[in-house]
Amino acid sequence: MTEHAPATASSELDTTIAEKISLAYARMAELDRPEIWITLREESDVLAEATDRARTFVAARSQPPLFGTLVAVKDNIDVAGLPTTCGCPAFGYTPATTAHAVQRLIDQGAIVLGKTNLDQFATGLVGTRSPYGAVRCAWDLDKVSGGSSSGSAVAVALGIVDIALGTDTAGSGRVPAAFNNIVGIKPSRGLVSTHGVTPACIDYDVVTVFAGDLPTATQALEHMVAPDPADSRSRTWPADVKTAPHHNQRVAVPRAQDLSALSDDYRVAFAHTVSELTERGTTCDSIDISPLLNAAELLYDGAIVAQRYNAVGAFLENTTESTDATVKQIILAGAEHSATSYASDQSTLVDLKATMLELLDGYDALLLPTTTDHPAIAAVQADPLTINRRLGTYTNFANLLDMTAVSVPGHSTAAGDPFGVTFLAPAFDDQVVLDIAALLTKTEPVTLVAGGVDLFVVGAHLRGFPAHHQLDARNARFLGEVSTTDAYRLVDLHAYPPRPGLIRMGQGDGSPVVGELYRLAPAHLGTFLAQLPTNMGLGHIELSDGRWVTGFCCTQEASDQGTDITEFGGWRAYRAQLSQAAI
Amino acid sequence: MTEHAPATASSELDTTIAEKISLAYARMAELDRPEIWITLREESDVLAEATDRARTFVAARSQPPLFGTLVAVKDNIDVAGLPTTCGCPAFGYTPATTAHAVQRLIDQGAIVLGKTNLDQFATGLVGTRSPYGAVRCAWDLDKVSGGSSSGSAVAVALGIVDIALGTDTAGSGRVPAAFNNIVGIKPSRGLVSTHGVTPACIDYDVVTVFAGDLPTATQALEHMVAPDPADSRSRTWPADVKTAPHHNQRVAVPRAQDLSALSDDYRVAFAHTVSELTERGTTCDSIDISPLLNAAELLYDGAIVAQRYNAVGAFLENTTESTDATVKQIILAGAEHSATSYASDQSTLVDLKATMLELLDGYDALLLPTTTDHPAIAAVQADPLTINRRLGTYTNFANLLDMTAVSVPGHSTAAGDPFGVTFLAPAFDDQVVLDIAALLTKTEPVTLVAGGVDLFVVGAHLRGFPAHHQLDARNARFLGEVSTTDAYRLVDLHAYPPRPGLIRMGQGDGSPVVGELYRLAPAHLGTFLAQLPTNMGLGHIELSDGRWVTGFCCTQEASDQGTDITEFGGWRAYRAQLSQAAI
Repeated sequence: MTEHAPATASSELDTTIAEKISLAYARMAELDRPEIWITLREESDVLAEATDRARTFVAARSQPPLFGTLVAVKDNIDVAGLPTTCGCPAFGYTPATTAHAVQRLIDQGAIVLGKTNLDQFATGLVGTRSPYGAVRCAWDLDKVSGGSSSGSAVAVALGIVDIALGTDTAGSGRVPAAFNNIVGIKPSRGLVSTHGVTPACIDYDVVTVFAGDLPTATQALEHMVAPDPADSRSRTWPADVKTAPHHNQRVAVPRAQDLSALSDDYRVAFAHTVSELTERGTTCDSIDISPLLNAAELLYDGAIVAQRYNAVGAFLENTTESTDATVKQIILAGAEHSATSYASDQSTLVDLKATMLELLDGYDALLLPTTTDHPAIAAVQADPLTINRRLGTYTNFANLLDMTAVSVPGHSTAAGDPFGVTFLAPAFDDQVVLDIAALLTKTEPVTLVAGGVDLFVVGAHLRGFPAHHQLDARNARFLGEVSTTDAYRLVDLHAYPPRPGLIRMGQGDGSPVVGELYRLAPAHLGTFLAQLPTNMGLGHIELSDGRWVTGFCCTQEASDQGTDITEFGGWRAYRAQLSQAAI
Repeated sequence: MTEHAPATASSELDTTIAEKISLAYARMAELDRPEIWITLREESDVLAEATDRARTFVAARSQPPLFGTLVAVKDNIDVAGLPTTCGCPAFGYTPATTAHAVQRLIDQGAIVLGKTNLDQFATGLVGTRSPYGAVRCAWDLDKVSGGSSSGSAVAVALGIVDIALGTDTAGSGRVPAAFNNIVGIKPSRGLVSTHGVTPACIDYDVVTVFAGDLPTATQALEHMVAPDPADSRSRTWPADVKTAPHHNQRVAVPRAQDLSALSDDYRVAFAHTVSELTERGTTCDSIDISPLLNAAELLYDGAIVAQRYNAVGAFLENTTESTDATVKQIILAGAEHSATSYASDQSTLVDLKATMLELLDGYDALLLPTTTDHPAIAAVQADPLTINRRLGTYTNFANLLDMTAVSVPGHSTAAGDPFGVTFLAPAFDDQVVLDIAALLTKTEPVTLVAGGVDLFVVGAHLRGFPAHHQLDARNARFLGEVSTTDAYRLVDLHAYPPRPGLIRMGQGDGSPVVGELYRLAPAHLGTFLAQLPTNMGLGHIELSDGRWVTGFCCTQEASDQGTDITEFGGWRAYRAQLSQAAI
């Protein structure tokens, strides 16, 4: 949907990027969607920056991975030198430093075009609550864009920028993705720093990323994820993080009665989406998600809205200028709750989180419609509370219950309109939901989780062989088929279950042996090693591309008794030949 | 200090236990400390239960590890059939089921003698706030016992029971340990289920254990730690849990100005304790702990007391009977705070926790005086709020900031009075603080953490050898010197840095080779393996006691080039001989 600059490393570079920037501004002029932006940089400034940075990169002979990526930033996230308004001009200030998440993208070569419109103070799921104008849906001018990250989503959907940053407390990074037929990733809380972001509910705010496709969004997110000492809520991948879904994926879906909030169009589209996923080999079971829907109600109806008051309540108490009446009403209500209600709501959330973990135990992810229906701007303006609340039915609980989520385009409605679905899972299962979303969207899965350890297997742990389940149980990530250097011999150890031994010889004294490379969390490698049979061990194997990776080492004792099968090139070919011979 | 039943497995067993029970009741009669107990079981009932259980165990030919261990349970923790009063008769009810933590002790053979007195609703650190009478210190009838787990601590200190359970929100499992010269372990929140415990502050309550010495307390705690699906706040050891302190331990201690709350006696005793620890090889550095002391103030002065109101406020609103006026005043004040204050206090805590983690980075633990001074009962009764508050100066913050803590006897005061100190560390570093406390108290460290993987090393990873730091950096736990079976040969690989290879032969074709056994978290084994040099690997080694453990495997290539040094019995002896020869 969006284009990347080709990876050239010469002075052509700045020409390419310059063309891309000019095209973006030309497209904006043509589209006439001024409500997308609160602050749009001058084209000449952006061009000058791009040229300047291109020179620096060429001089340093390094081209960062995001060079030429055009970015829009939601206007509750600081970019040094550009005003942060949160959709309220009177609140505006010009920060001296750039938010951690944005800075990490800039450091990798991304170029910020400007700051986007939003539901004021990130309070809303509609995109209409802004004095800068209601943001119109990318493909239907009468319908809402969704919010609160409205401008960011539409800027991506219209192909103006490659990626855009949003924030998500109640669904602000997912609902606009669904309405505008793009991808919105809401990572687990704390993986991306919120330093430099104006809080909505400080405990539940997450920086999100939009892109036209899942690989582009995931690649950007990979650069945004980093611990930040300046953010007290910063978290890192746990030592037993899942690096992939299970091979035979199981996805939970809601029961029919949990989908009663859906429009008829969306209900049919959701059923089609579930069917599509099933056709691609995923097992979909319906579960009772009512505890999650109950949690959702606590976000706006409960005492937690006190966090919103703490963020901007004092400002709103003293201002009438340029505030949205609905937003103001919601946030000021935060002052009316008692500490006992707050503590009680928090306690309910603790219980509901435990229930969620229990409900999803045994599932790789939960699949839900992202939102309930696609309202017209006029309808929302006539009834600013009820519709907004309904739109959050399937998003509100995610951050309250500490879940990760990604919204992707699902099966279109009968009328051919876009429809979005969200994959959710407990915190830190980000890679799991992204991989399943890739399956649905027919895109290449992109590795997000860092810190995994690579393991090379050549025998019984290969896909389809008897010990493979030991890798699958540890959510090991299949990285591909790879070969050793020509310093190895493969022997059949005549063991039961059958397995080979890989023996290192002198360079050139063997042959390349083919196997599979997996990535798994350090803790999973540790338990994998500890649970191996006593005559098996792990050492290091040299791959044909020069890497040394962890792999099976063969004891002298065992290899002395084996039969050389190096000529087959690998265990799979050898076993296939044996089966063939047996017929 | 306390005695365990000898591990006999015959019908003598019930005689021994019966004698022990009779002695306990005789001692109680002699001591005349009725205020310890709220409900004391009839001696005949206890004897009958013990005899019955002994018969069952003998019949099953299994003697559980805690058989004969006498236990007292704080009266805010349910024991089926005994009333739970929380120190308020009008609140009392008789539960049908036993709290998870107690049940786990009973399942291992422990016998409950009764329910102990406490500061009402576990609100207090003094032990005087109870209609069942002020609990007097074990060794001075005029002084407070400390609270809120007052009766439990004194029952242990007077040798009536082997262990006693307490709870700890603000220091209730530590302050009474200090005043009564015993050990009080407050594990990390969630490791021990709080199911069946009347909440004080539900987010910050922890079940604790008292014993006369650290090994007894740790062994009991080991059985109490278990995940519990009935407790939404239940947590388990992380995959990268530390299984030991670093070899060269570093302990943080407060600056002089942070100790201003201490009595002169305690200040001197604390300095002596720090000196003792330093003499045992620990590096003690002073750090600024004022952020922790600031957090402490939030527990009673902040909105968090709303949690106490949610637990028993409705009861107290409607009762005048048998309530403690001070406790009632504190808890009812919980209704007066706003949700915004609560949210703001929680946010402050998030920041302070991050600060704590930063402050303690690079340290194995923090050493503090457990409390500030030892007041007389009369003084506390004359001023029930100020003194109580002061006593919590060094305990209040621990649960708020998610830390583990253990209080042990420190150096006595100049007058020869007991003085207690507490080792603290971030959540899940329980083993670290327990091991350092063992060093101070000159007791054998006891393994608490479950789920570690054992690793046998024979060469460069031995203590004092060049690669040992790789184990130390991963907080690997030294389990002892062990030997292989006689199926191994040791060769000098003539590598640099020098290291041997251990090669498995046929049974009896080698000799026992001595090495060291370590336990480390699965994640740490994973990174250890991944970071080994490419020519080293891990497999499994058979020890002389029949166990197979993870250990180094030697590649054929390497071992072919080595020199057999099996005759030396181990790498250390071989290297010592080499050094000798060089002189």
